[in-house]
Amino acid sequence: MKINLPLLGKTKNSFIETGMKEYSGRLKHYTPITLNVLKVKKKKGWTEQQERQEEGRILLANTMPGDVKVVLDSTGKQLSSEQFADLLSRWEQDGRKQASFLIGGPTGHSKEVLQQADVTLSLSRMTFTHDMVRMFLLEQLYRAYTIKAGEKYHK
Amino acid sequence: MKINLPLLGKTKNSFIETGMKEYSGRLKHYTPITLNVLKVKKKKGWTEQQERQEEGRILLANTMPGDVKVVLDSTGKQLSSEQFADLLSRWEQDGRKQASFLIGGPTGHSKEVLQQADVTLSLSRMTFTHDMVRMFLLEQLYRAYTIKAGEKYHK
Repeated sequence: MKINLPLLGKTKNSFIETGMKEYSGRLKHYTPITLNVLKVKKKKGWTEQQERQEEGRILLANTMPGDVKVVLDSTGKQLSSEQFADLLSRWEQDGRKQASFLIGGPTGHSKEVLQQADVTLSLSRMTFTHDMVRMFLLEQLYRAYTIKAGEKYHK
Repeated sequence: MKINLPLLGKTKNSFIETGMKEYSGRLKHYTPITLNVLKVKKKKGWTEQQERQEEGRILLANTMPGDVKVVLDSTGKQLSSEQFADLLSRWEQDGRKQASFLIGGPTGHSKEVLQQADVTLSLSRMTFTHDMVRMFLLEQLYRAYTIKAGEKYHK
């Protein structure tokens, strides 16, 4: 199963960019991964809701029909790393071709994105920057694949 | 209130080291912070329990009597960033001089450390590397101080 991680805008912190490359590089040994940086053209005078809708439209346009859509959101379900690995295994067993992980913009996800979610996932009750969420998720994806492969990965 | 973060060994990933410097640098504008890298001399043939005990001894030796002891552990309480900020404010109001944040070794904390905890805190249900926990915590401490100061810090 391929991993698709569309990114709303560039990663701002260079150390996080480095971390993302580190974990996506390791992840590639287990499964193909696509990291597309998407441009969001915001118009002056837009409300937060309009921005969210545009961001959501762009995110969804970067998924394929039939993708498992995993929406990262603070209201989502919290899983342990092992449960997350099990979930990925289940989707693979179900013959799913690709899982798309959707990280929202600064004000969160639009209704449209939340409605299309197969799973809504929360990494922590704490709030993190977008950039940080990208790196956390890639680290957890890499961790999940090492768990699935029965390999030892340091805590 | 001072922040004390004793570290069991060096940070392995250089991008995480960079991130830690970034957030501890920002945090210093709000409160003094001590980051001491501690050497753990492990003896051959030690059991995991013996290692945990030695790590715990070193961590506790690097706290001061009267410190608030916050133990980072997967079994701990999960707080939102706002609740975490409130907790820090309460300790300041109580006149606490220093809060020590204790991150365990590869196999977790010894009983002695867990028993001495004022609060046991979990950042996520997911497992992260030690290194990552260091950076997460510093980012959340910085975030907490911006919340306390009523400042806007991007998500």
